Amino acid sequence: MSEKIYIGVDLGGTSVKVGICDEQGSLLQTYEGPTGVEDGPAAVLDRIAQYVKQIVSDSAYQWEQVAGVGAGIAGFLDIATGTVLFAPNLRWENVAVKQELETRLQLPVAIDNDANVAALGEAWSGAGAGLQHIVAFTLGTGVGGGIIIDGRIYQGFRGMAGELGHIKVVPDLEAIQCGCGQLGCVETVSSATGIVRMAKDAVQRGEATSLSLNESISAKDVFDAAKDGDEVAVRIVKRAAYYLGKAMAAVAVVLNPQRFVIGGGVSRAGDILFNEIRKVYAQNVPDVFTQGVDIVPAKLGNDAGIVGAAGLNLK
Amino acid sequence: MSEKIYIGVDLGGTSVKVGICDEQGSLLQTYEGPTGVEDGPAAVLDRIAQYVKQIVSDSAYQWEQVAGVGAGIAGFLDIATGTVLFAPNLRWENVAVKQELETRLQLPVAIDNDANVAALGEAWSGAGAGLQHIVAFTLGTGVGGGIIIDGRIYQGFRGMAGELGHIKVVPDLEAIQCGCGQLGCVETVSSATGIVRMAKDAVQRGEATSLSLNESISAKDVFDAAKDGDEVAVRIVKRAAYYLGKAMAAVAVVLNPQRFVIGGGVSRAGDILFNEIRKVYAQNVPDVFTQGVDIVPAKLGNDAGIVGAAGLNLK
Repeated sequence: MSEKIYIGVDLGGTSVKVGICDEQGSLLQTYEGPTGVEDGPAAVLDRIAQYVKQIVSDSAYQWEQVAGVGAGIAGFLDIATGTVLFAPNLRWENVAVKQELETRLQLPVAIDNDANVAALGEAWSGAGAGLQHIVAFTLGTGVGGGIIIDGRIYQGFRGMAGELGHIKVVPDLEAIQCGCGQLGCVETVSSATGIVRMAKDAVQRGEATSLSLNESISAKDVFDAAKDGDEVAVRIVKRAAYYLGKAMAAVAVVLNPQRFVIGGGVSRAGDILFNEIRKVYAQNVPDVFTQGVDIVPAKLGNDAGIVGAAGLNLK
Repeated sequence: MSEKIYIGVDLGGTSVKVGICDEQGSLLQTYEGPTGVEDGPAAVLDRIAQYVKQIVSDSAYQWEQVAGVGAGIAGFLDIATGTVLFAPNLRWENVAVKQELETRLQLPVAIDNDANVAALGEAWSGAGAGLQHIVAFTLGTGVGGGIIIDGRIYQGFRGMAGELGHIKVVPDLEAIQCGCGQLGCVETVSSATGIVRMAKDAVQRGEATSLSLNESISAKDVFDAAKDGDEVAVRIVKRAAYYLGKAMAAVAVVLNPQRFVIGGGVSRAGDILFNEIRKVYAQNVPDVFTQGVDIVPAKLGNDAGIVGAAGLNLK
C-alpha cells in the first residue's frame, strides 16, 4: 500500500484524458471525459478535479497513494507558477491551473506544455527509458520539442527551452513565415501542416502527382503516395526529413543527446521518413555526434502526454 | 583558516598558468611557468604539480585548504575519466591527466576543455555571475562554446555538448569546409581565422579596401579598418556578426539562456561587433527569447580559463 501512484492529465480542447501511472511510468488505467470549454475555466477545472477523483476511486489504489497530479496543456504557460497565460484551444487567458487544482484536490499539481510532457513520457517509460540525455520532437500540427536531462524537463530561463520547432533551417530566400512570426522555422516544413502545404502547392502548380487537391488531404496521404513511388510526394517527404535532420544536427552540437525520439502523427510514416532523417542527420554532424547516438520513433503514441504529465511530480 | 581555495590550471602549449581562487571565484594569485612540451607528458605533469605546490606555498593559504585542482586543456578529452584523448598543441595522446595529477598531488583533480572552462569562469565570477542559465561563445582561432546550467558545465551524453562553433549556419551554396569536416559551421566565418580569411580573400580579389595582404593581418586589423569606415571591412564584420547571431538564435530556442557571454580575442572589437550581433539575434528569434535576455562581452579576459578550471571542483 505504500507504493506511490502518479496522475497525468492531458487537457485538450474537446476531451480531458486522465491516467494513473505507477512509479515506473506504466500507464495502469485511463479515464476520459468532455472538456466543456464553453462553460469557462472554473467549470473545466471542477470537471478535471472530478475526473481525477473518479479514476482513483475506480482503481485499486487509495487517495493517500497519489503523489501528485500533472497536466499537459497546449499553449503559452508560466511553468514556475503553474499558470496558463494563453491557450487558444481552451480559450483561456491567465488561468492559475496549479493553484486552482491544488485547492480542489489538496495534492501537489504541476503543469507543462504538451510537447514537453510528451518528451518526458517517452523518456520515463517510452523510447528513451533509462537514458540520461533525450531530445524529443513531436511532429503534428506544429513541430514540438522537449529536452529531458536526467529524467527532468529542461526549462531554461523562462520555461521556453526546447522550442525546437523554431530552429530556423530553411535558407532565407526559400523560407515562408511561421506562426511565430519568424521565417524558415523547421515547423514550416516538417510538421503535418507543412507537408500538407507543400502537397497542396505542388497540386496547384499542376505537378505530375497522384495527390489531389481536396480539403481533407493529410500528411498520411503524402506518405502513402511516396511509398507508392509518387515522385512529387517523395520529394516532399525528403524535404520534410531534410530540414528536420538539419535541425537535429544543430541540436546535437548544442546538447549532445544520446537519443532523439520522434513522435506525433507524422512519425508514423515509418522507414520512408526515418531512413531519410538518419541519413541527413549523419551528413550534417561531425562523426562524434553519431557514435552511440540514435534516432528512434516514439513508443507511447497518444499516451505519451498522459504519462509525461503524470511524471511531472516525480522527485 | 577553514576557507577553501580552488586551484585552476590553464595548460597551454608554451606556458602553464596556475591560479588560486577563493570560494567566490575571485582570482587571488597567479603563477606561470613553461610547459616544456618537448619533454613529454610525464615531465609536463611533474611540472604542473610543482607549480601547484609552489603557488600554494607562496600564498597565505595552507595546503589543507585546497579543495581541488582543475585544468583547462584545448583538445579532445574524456571528461568523465579525466583523460586527454588528443591534444595537438601538447602533442599528447591518451594521457590520464586526472589520475596522474591526483597521484602527484593527493587532491581531487578535474579537467575540461578550454571553451567549457572559460564559460564556467565567466558564469562563476565574470559576466554571468549569479545567473542560472548561461551560454558562452569564445571567438578565437575557432569558435568555442560552453553551456553553464546552475553553475555547472553541461556535458551531454559524451561530453560533447556546447560545441557551438559547429552549428551550421552558412547556406550550403555559400559554405566553406570547417576543420571538423562539415560545411558552413559558424566557426568558418565568426572566428578570428574566419575573419582573417574573408579579409585576405577580399584583398586578393582586388576589392577597394585599406586592408593589405600580409601574413600578419589580424582580426583586430579588420575591426580597426571597419571602425575607420572601410566598407569591405564593415561587410566582413557584419558577416561574422550575422552568422554568430543566427547561431545564437538557434541556441536560444533550444536552451532559452538568460545571458549570452561573448569572449575571446574577437570579442574585444566592442560595439561595432556587439550592436550587430544583438540586432541579428533579435531579428531571428520570437520576441519571448529577447525578453530579459542579454548579450554581453566577457569580463575575465585571459583569466577566464584559470578561474573556470578552478571552478571545476565546486560542489
